[in-house]
Amino acid sequence: MNTFQFYSPTEFVFGKGTENKAGYYVKKHGGTNVLLHYGGGSAIRSGLLDRVKKSLDEENIVYTELGGVQPNPIDTLVYKGIEICRQKKIDFILAVGGGSVIDSAKAIAMGVPYEGDFWDFYCDKSPQVALPVATVLTIAAAGSEGSGDSVITKAEVGLKRGAGSDLIRPKFSIMNPELTCTLPAYQTACGATDIMAHVFERYFTNTTEVEITDRLCEAVLLTMIKETPRVIADPTNYEARANIMWAGTVAHTNIVGVGREQDWNSHGIEHELSALYDCAHGAGLAVIMPAWMEFVYKHNVLRFAQAAVRVWGCQMDFEQPENTAREGIIRFRSFLKSIGMPLTFAELGAREEDIPQLVEKFGIGNGKTGGFVKLSGSDIEQIYRIAVKPELINTPHL
Amino acid sequence: MNTFQFYSPTEFVFGKGTENKAGYYVKKHGGTNVLLHYGGGSAIRSGLLDRVKKSLDEENIVYTELGGVQPNPIDTLVYKGIEICRQKKIDFILAVGGGSVIDSAKAIAMGVPYEGDFWDFYCDKSPQVALPVATVLTIAAAGSEGSGDSVITKAEVGLKRGAGSDLIRPKFSIMNPELTCTLPAYQTACGATDIMAHVFERYFTNTTEVEITDRLCEAVLLTMIKETPRVIADPTNYEARANIMWAGTVAHTNIVGVGREQDWNSHGIEHELSALYDCAHGAGLAVIMPAWMEFVYKHNVLRFAQAAVRVWGCQMDFEQPENTAREGIIRFRSFLKSIGMPLTFAELGAREEDIPQLVEKFGIGNGKTGGFVKLSGSDIEQIYRIAVKPELINTPHL
Repeated sequence: MNTFQFYSPTEFVFGKGTENKAGYYVKKHGGTNVLLHYGGGSAIRSGLLDRVKKSLDEENIVYTELGGVQPNPIDTLVYKGIEICRQKKIDFILAVGGGSVIDSAKAIAMGVPYEGDFWDFYCDKSPQVALPVATVLTIAAAGSEGSGDSVITKAEVGLKRGAGSDLIRPKFSIMNPELTCTLPAYQTACGATDIMAHVFERYFTNTTEVEITDRLCEAVLLTMIKETPRVIADPTNYEARANIMWAGTVAHTNIVGVGREQDWNSHGIEHELSALYDCAHGAGLAVIMPAWMEFVYKHNVLRFAQAAVRVWGCQMDFEQPENTAREGIIRFRSFLKSIGMPLTFAELGAREEDIPQLVEKFGIGNGKTGGFVKLSGSDIEQIYRIAVKPELINTPHL
Repeated sequence: MNTFQFYSPTEFVFGKGTENKAGYYVKKHGGTNVLLHYGGGSAIRSGLLDRVKKSLDEENIVYTELGGVQPNPIDTLVYKGIEICRQKKIDFILAVGGGSVIDSAKAIAMGVPYEGDFWDFYCDKSPQVALPVATVLTIAAAGSEGSGDSVITKAEVGLKRGAGSDLIRPKFSIMNPELTCTLPAYQTACGATDIMAHVFERYFTNTTEVEITDRLCEAVLLTMIKETPRVIADPTNYEARANIMWAGTVAHTNIVGVGREQDWNSHGIEHELSALYDCAHGAGLAVIMPAWMEFVYKHNVLRFAQAAVRVWGCQMDFEQPENTAREGIIRFRSFLKSIGMPLTFAELGAREEDIPQLVEKFGIGNGKTGGFVKLSGSDIEQIYRIAVKPELINTPHL
């Protein structure tokens, strides 16, 4: 196990009706003059935004609204938010929405007290200070409600990049699973895929002797495998929604990933897809993550066999562990298909002929990147090509 | 899943040599005038205390020492600590030690700014404010390094009681598994038993649909089952020590127990044993916890069967699930025995004739207490009697 630091100071407030306490928690955490940041129509139509505003009013908290965050949130709205916060002397940002809204709020939070361009933080610079951020979560997916991460797209050039700092971990996150009961099946499945990817990107590691985090990773995955089909079958299943929502948070505070080298190449490789095609991040991951697995599993067959046995319930083939490792990837794809996810470029609406462009945008040139397996540009190209025509997939062989 | 609030704002600093950063983290978290609280000789003999002092000196942090915390920490030292803190205008308490030292530090932290008797907080009163506490952990056991809990014994009357508040969650906890490599096997096994008990007391619940926390509980237990025998066999096994140390923290921040009714009767029933005989808490739990299980398992046979299958690797007996449930308890006792724990009153050095006194001190009169199963005084007496002569134990039947 490696040396680590873990700091997750977010206060989680979980359960029915908790959004009505938003004002109380803003006050508790020192907010007086709030930027209320949200996305499109659903938070308005559902009445959620009104309930949050009422709760702020009840605590005499002043707020300024900034809506309009889109999926794959873009820099232009961040710049606008920074300007508003400076003009209005905002001291607290409350994000009402999913990962996109929260990530946009985090970018604004870092940008306001910074003299340079906030985009610097998405190019490896560390912030020294940030406005406090909090969330009212509306979808289980990104885990941004409990993480110190944010992903923003530079709209003009279609570049999607991440930033990370404990400073942008939310002060509190209000999580009412009921708010997710109206989500369509496809969006729900995209969120579930993102949650599982957050775990797998921590699970496949070269760090040995990390049983506790292996087991915690498996705990989240087993939960997702049980609960996701239940919400796809019945979107209003509160209990399944609740399990998924908390699993999504646990998956990404990093409590399941401390003390080990991680590998976020699947996220990076996917980001180029959602940046180019504006597809859902989770759908892109459903196409990329198993393709990445198919490309790298031989690097550590027994680790993939462990996942197959412990997570997917495969029988261990002690004579040929590779069979077990491969069966785990096949079952992952079967699961993704069963919840309505795409598995190939074609199903996602991506084009094989764009692969060189995708690799180019990934932008590692002649370098290599990754934790579990270091990938070159040519490796990444091969992963995209596997995603065009996967081998380890449970379809009739022609 | 029930509504919950979860707030674990402790900064964990984990790995070799991290104790040398104590001063840095005290400063980071606002401490300038510190009470350095510790136990007996081992922290001195090992040089740990000197390293911590050096690190405080390097940051020009003033400190006052208060050593002498004993296992099952007592109120009298707490009163002394409160007085010192008030006289010296201490603004931060740094506990160097295990659960006893940390719990004592937490009691002092609540007592200093409080006008009444700190013992009020151990009789269900909630603190409104407390001094900040932080820790340098020397044993994986109590989980106090990441919890909002503290247990103190009122020396004169031998009463052991707990307090809980997010206010006493440590600001930071420094966790160097190397510091635990010198612990004797018995103390290590006591710690491991305590960790497993913290999980089981959350696992057995009447709350349904808590798959995520079930799985997280199982993750910690599976880790303990793998790693504990390895440190008993080789106490200097750093990797196993590291896994156990982080498992011990995860077991008790409550991240594995949120959203569910819990049942802490085993801890309560044990507390009377360690208060009366001054035995190790973990050893008392090894005797009481399986006895409690043996008494209550029929309340929900399938939940006990789930533990048996998922945690202990038992085969499910689908015709007679009770067999599986019982086998799980037998395996738990076998495991405890294998790591050197006592299983009976006699092995612990407790006396059957003291049972009425133990029940009396438990002090529920004609009431009932518990989450999973509500127990009367007579039920508790029966549990003590099971602990005298267990049934579900893997010994030759005479």
